[in-house]
Amino acid sequence: MPEYLPTTPYRGTRDFLPPEMSVRTQVYERLYGVLESRGFQRYDGPVLEPIEIYEAKSSREIVEQQLYTLTDRGGRRLALRPEMTPSVARIIAGNAGKLQFPVRWYSNPNCHRYERPQRGRVREHWQINADIFGSESPSCEIEIFELIHDMLGGIGATPDMWRLRVSDRVLLSSILTDIVELDESLLRGVSSIVDRWEKYPREKLAEDAGALGVTDKQFDRLAETLAGGAAVLDEIPSAVRENSQLAKVLVTDAAGLVEFDPMIVRGFDYYTSTVFEVFDTSPENNRSLFGGGRYDNLVGLYSAQKIPGIGFGMGDVTLIDFLGTHGLLPEPLAEVDVVVIPVEADLADPARSVARSLRAAGLRTSTPLEPRKLGKEITRADKAGARVVVIVGREDWDGGSVTIRNLVTKQQDQVSVDSVGAAVRASLDQAAEDVTGAGGAPSS
Amino acid sequence: MPEYLPTTPYRGTRDFLPPEMSVRTQVYERLYGVLESRGFQRYDGPVLEPIEIYEAKSSREIVEQQLYTLTDRGGRRLALRPEMTPSVARIIAGNAGKLQFPVRWYSNPNCHRYERPQRGRVREHWQINADIFGSESPSCEIEIFELIHDMLGGIGATPDMWRLRVSDRVLLSSILTDIVELDESLLRGVSSIVDRWEKYPREKLAEDAGALGVTDKQFDRLAETLAGGAAVLDEIPSAVRENSQLAKVLVTDAAGLVEFDPMIVRGFDYYTSTVFEVFDTSPENNRSLFGGGRYDNLVGLYSAQKIPGIGFGMGDVTLIDFLGTHGLLPEPLAEVDVVVIPVEADLADPARSVARSLRAAGLRTSTPLEPRKLGKEITRADKAGARVVVIVGREDWDGGSVTIRNLVTKQQDQVSVDSVGAAVRASLDQAAEDVTGAGGAPSS
Repeated sequence: MPEYLPTTPYRGTRDFLPPEMSVRTQVYERLYGVLESRGFQRYDGPVLEPIEIYEAKSSREIVEQQLYTLTDRGGRRLALRPEMTPSVARIIAGNAGKLQFPVRWYSNPNCHRYERPQRGRVREHWQINADIFGSESPSCEIEIFELIHDMLGGIGATPDMWRLRVSDRVLLSSILTDIVELDESLLRGVSSIVDRWEKYPREKLAEDAGALGVTDKQFDRLAETLAGGAAVLDEIPSAVRENSQLAKVLVTDAAGLVEFDPMIVRGFDYYTSTVFEVFDTSPENNRSLFGGGRYDNLVGLYSAQKIPGIGFGMGDVTLIDFLGTHGLLPEPLAEVDVVVIPVEADLADPARSVARSLRAAGLRTSTPLEPRKLGKEITRADKAGARVVVIVGREDWDGGSVTIRNLVTKQQDQVSVDSVGAAVRASLDQAAEDVTGAGGAPSS
Repeated sequence: MPEYLPTTPYRGTRDFLPPEMSVRTQVYERLYGVLESRGFQRYDGPVLEPIEIYEAKSSREIVEQQLYTLTDRGGRRLALRPEMTPSVARIIAGNAGKLQFPVRWYSNPNCHRYERPQRGRVREHWQINADIFGSESPSCEIEIFELIHDMLGGIGATPDMWRLRVSDRVLLSSILTDIVELDESLLRGVSSIVDRWEKYPREKLAEDAGALGVTDKQFDRLAETLAGGAAVLDEIPSAVRENSQLAKVLVTDAAGLVEFDPMIVRGFDYYTSTVFEVFDTSPENNRSLFGGGRYDNLVGLYSAQKIPGIGFGMGDVTLIDFLGTHGLLPEPLAEVDVVVIPVEADLADPARSVARSLRAAGLRTSTPLEPRKLGKEITRADKAGARVVVIVGREDWDGGSVTIRNLVTKQQDQVSVDSVGAAVRASLDQAAEDVTGAGGAPSS
C-alpha cells in the first residue's frame, strides 16, 4: 500500500475552500469600499522582512516567542512579517519625498505568528491595516474613529454590537503619577498591569503590583480610578490634557464615537499616546476584536524626518467570529448564473458559442466538461446555484433556437439564439422575484 | 548621529505604493471578473507548507536551489510555497468528498523563490492560478484555452499581441521514439533538450544531445521535426493521437484557439500530457508570459482517488511587463472624488457631516486633517485627483448652504446642504464630460 502525504494544512494555518473564500471576499470588498469612500488608498509590501525591523520596536512577546525566522541562501536574516506596522513605517520613510502628507493608507496582508492555535488565534492570519501618516492633529483620531464606525456599519453591525474604548498613554502616565502618586520609575511596569487588568483576578494583579513596589494604598487608588472610567478625566491637570490629542477629541462632536476608558493600554511598545480597542458586546463572544493607536516615533527608526502615525490592524479570524456571533455572515455566492447544456456530445461547440454570448451579456455561465445525461446535468447545475439552464438540442439548434428552463419557476421556453442573452436575463429576474434567498441575483 | 534602518524592501521583493497597487488591483479585478464569468471559484491556502509536498513532484531546480525553508519552534520543516499547484492538489485531495467534480478553481497567492533578481524575475511574486480538477475530457483543454483568450482580452490585449503554443508530452514521446527513433531511455533527457531549444545555440544543443547518446542523424531529424511545427501531427500514429486530449481538441472548432508546437515542454515534472505556454509577440518583450499543463497524477500523492488536473499560473511581473509593453496599463485611480474643506478650524464638525452625506450618495470623499488656508487645500485636493471641492464657510453654513467648486470647469455654485449629494454628482458628471483623462469619473 502506498503512503500518502497528509492533506491537512500546516497547524494553525487554513485552507479556504470556495464557500469560505466567497464569504471572506464579500466581507473584505465591503470593507475596502468603506476605506476607499474616505480616501484611504491601498498599498502592499513583502511577506519577508529584515528581522531588525521587529527587534527594534515590536512587542517583546512577538520577537522572542512568535517570530518565524529564516536565513536566506545569501546569509540574510529574515522574518515572516508578524504584523504590518513596521513594514508600512519603513515604506513611508523610504518614499516620504514623493508623498503628499498626511496620507491615508490601507492594506490587507497575511501575517505569521507562532502561537498555540485556539479560538481566535491562528498562525497565519489576514489583517486589514488602516493608518494615517504625517499629522499630529486630533482630526486623525476622529478620522480613525469615524472609519471604524463606517467599517463595522458597512458589514452590517449595529452600534449595540460593539464598543470602541479609548485611552491615551499620556493621560495614563498622569493618572499613575499625579493621581495614584506612583514614582515615574514604576510607569512601565504598572502600565503593563493595567493592560492585564481585565484578564487576571484582582489578587494576582495586587501581588504583581506589590512585587514592583506599589503600596496597598496606591493599588486601591488605582483600582478605584480604573473602575471610575471616564470620571478620572476631570482630575487630570489641564496642562496634561492640552498635550493629549484624545483629550481634544473628547470636547468635539466626535466624543460620541468613543468611550474613554483608562484600562485600555495595548501591548505594542511603539504606541506613544492614543490607544483604542473594539470589543464585542455579545456575552457569547465577549472579547477584543481589534485595536490600534498612535505611534509618533516609529518612522523615526528609518529616517530623521518626523512622521507621526496612527492606525489599527483588524484580523480576519476575530472579525469572522464576530460576524458569525451576530448572524451577519454573507451567504457564499452561487458558482454561476446559468449552465448551457448540449443534449448530445457533438453539440458542445454550439453550447460553447451560446455560453459566450451569455457571458457577453454579463451572465456568469458555464458549460459541462463531461458528457452526461440531461437530467443529471440539470441536477448538477441546480446544486451549483444556477437558476437557469439553457438546453441546446439538435432540432432546436438547426432551427436557430434553444430552450431556456428556469430552475426556480420551472417555466420552459424556446427562444431564438440571437435573443438568448435578454431572455435568460429576464428569466433570472423572474427567479430572483420568486426567491428571496441569497446568491439568487445575477452578478451584474 | 543616529543610525537608521534601511528603507528598501528585502532584495527581490517589492513594496507597492498606492499608484502601483491601484494598477495591480484594477488588472486583477478584471481577471477575477473573467474567471468568475466562466464559473471559476476562488480559493486560498497558506504561505507555509510542509516541505515534503515540493520534494515529491516539483522541478528539481525549485527544490534544490529556490526553496525558502525554515524549521518552526516545534521542529516542523516548512517551506514558503514557491508555486500553488502542490497546495491546491493537497486541498482538492483533502476535500474531495464534499466537492462536485469537475471543479473550476482559481486563486492569487504570493509565492517565494530564491532567484537572482532581474527583469521578469523576483523573489516574491503574485500568481493567478486557474485549474480544473476531476475530468480527463478534452473539454477541459478547450475550457482552459478559451479562458486564456478571455483573460487576455479582458485586460485589453488583442490576439496579435500574443501566441498560445501547445503540445502534449504523450505526442512528444511518440515524436521522439516513433519519428526521431530514439530509445525510450533517452526520452527524459531529450525532452529537456527540446525544452531548452529556443534558449540555447544549436551547437550547444547538439553537444548535449551527443553526450546523451543521440546520433547526428537523430539530432538532424529532431531539428527538422521541431522546425516543421504542426506538420508532424500527421506523422504521429493514430493510436497515439487517440490517447491525446490535445489531439482531440485539434479536430474541433477550438483548434483555432491554439498553435500546436512540439517545442513546448515546460519545466515541471508533474505534467503528464497537455502543456502550453503563452508568448508575447512584441519584439521588445519577446518572451514567455505564462504557461501550464495537465497533471493527472499530482493529487495521487495525497489520495488513492484518481483526480486529474489541468491549469496554469500567471505571474504578476511578466503580466505587468506585457501590459506596459503594449500600452495597456490602466491609470491609477484618483484618491477621492471630492474634498470638503472647512474655511475655519471650528467648521471641521460641519465639514465632516457634509462629507458623510456625500459618502452616503456614493462619492469617495475626504476632509482635511490639518488646518490650512483654503487655496492650499484646493491645490492639494487637485493633486489628489479630486474634481470637485465643497467649501464650508461660516456665513453659508449658518444659512444652510455650502459652495461647490468644480476644479475642471472652474464653475462655482452655492447649494443647499440638503441637496449637496445630487449637486456634487452633477458637477462630477460635468467634469467627466470635459475631461477624457483617466480617474475622472466618480467611483459608483
